[in-house]
Amino acid sequence: MTTLNQQQDPAEAAKRKAAEWAASQIEDGMAVGLGSGTTSALVIEEVGRRVASGLRITAIATSEQSHHQAISLGIPMTDFAHQPHLDLTIDGADEVEEGTLHLIKGHGGALLREKIVAMASSRLLIAVDPRKLVKILGSIFTLPVEVVPFGWETTDARLRDLGFAPELRVTDDGKPYVTDGHHYILHCNLPQSGLTPEQAASALKQTVGVVEHGLFLGMASRVVIGSVDGIQILEAKR
Amino acid sequence: MTTLNQQQDPAEAAKRKAAEWAASQIEDGMAVGLGSGTTSALVIEEVGRRVASGLRITAIATSEQSHHQAISLGIPMTDFAHQPHLDLTIDGADEVEEGTLHLIKGHGGALLREKIVAMASSRLLIAVDPRKLVKILGSIFTLPVEVVPFGWETTDARLRDLGFAPELRVTDDGKPYVTDGHHYILHCNLPQSGLTPEQAASALKQTVGVVEHGLFLGMASRVVIGSVDGIQILEAKR
Repeated sequence: MTTLNQQQDPAEAAKRKAAEWAASQIEDGMAVGLGSGTTSALVIEEVGRRVASGLRITAIATSEQSHHQAISLGIPMTDFAHQPHLDLTIDGADEVEEGTLHLIKGHGGALLREKIVAMASSRLLIAVDPRKLVKILGSIFTLPVEVVPFGWETTDARLRDLGFAPELRVTDDGKPYVTDGHHYILHCNLPQSGLTPEQAASALKQTVGVVEHGLFLGMASRVVIGSVDGIQILEAKR
Repeated sequence: MTTLNQQQDPAEAAKRKAAEWAASQIEDGMAVGLGSGTTSALVIEEVGRRVASGLRITAIATSEQSHHQAISLGIPMTDFAHQPHLDLTIDGADEVEEGTLHLIKGHGGALLREKIVAMASSRLLIAVDPRKLVKILGSIFTLPVEVVPFGWETTDARLRDLGFAPELRVTDDGKPYVTDGHHYILHCNLPQSGLTPEQAASALKQTVGVVEHGLFLGMASRVVIGSVDGIQILEAKR
């Protein structure tokens, strides 16, 4: 029943195509970063299948949720104390900018761990459906910025002064959303800031109270875009 | 008996002189930031005395410890939701660089909140004893850097690559020291990095996994240095 529904949903089918190809890139003996979000969940499902069929890897996940999914599928999990360097990380993205392959990530609420895992990886492979492709970053999604809860109101004020029009992410009951790292999220408006992604990334990270932001610039080595019919692969021009 | 011991200890007497003068700078109606550490504890003691004598202020503390001390002395505490801007923050420092008044702070383990509170204040007044004055920052103390626990080993490796020779702060039982904000502390060697304080501040804050560092550059408006005989006041040249 689930499978039938998934096949009827073109976005779901596209994600699955991208996820299957991404998971196929993992080789025996690799240390792998596993991302967060709906497409990453499909990747982890596929990786679980491959592990059940004999693939030997170790993995680190970018969220508690992905970690638990991976554990439940029998994927051998490790941590940075035992595995400081990863060969390949597969993750999703909220937006992929055509040409640059710059990303906005973090709407799943895990941008900090996603960035730490990506930084520790030789290669970052992004799996998305075609709706995630944009001409200009910030066209569809806001830019999530992870901030320290203590005095977040003052950080919010400074980001407002920078032109980012921040809004606190709240849960359904109106309380601040708390990340795995005990931080809050401010959703920022990148186009409204008038800054380039590079300028925005630097300005945000330099702001006292900001832990990390969802701009992943020059980090993706490949992007795989699934569709009902197949996949398209974009390579970083570096 | 306590008073006698304090008078016998020149450093303690010096701190108290600085603390008393710093506390005297608070005026009726002010919103005040209260720092952390031994000198700040003396400041809070003196502020408590002034509040008991009729001084009307509200305050925000930079650590749980200072917060509880202030509460126990009847100082009316607030938070940034009610008081986004402070008139004056009084705090200690580990090192004060002569001439620039650049600071290293955070050996008490509260650098993140100290910086957020300082940033929210019109003026930052630093109270120290003379041993804290240095010609070059990092001469006596290491530079504490607050980092995300998840993947801290990878952040440590990147700071090592930058030349900071980081060392994880641990508690007496060998476990990582955890800050009020749920982070770890890496003690860094500033002179060994070969970077200027400005370069180091930027490089550290831009590093993924770094939340904040203990360099307070151009933030102190005044430094009061206590001694057994009296006080000396250094003004920022801005």
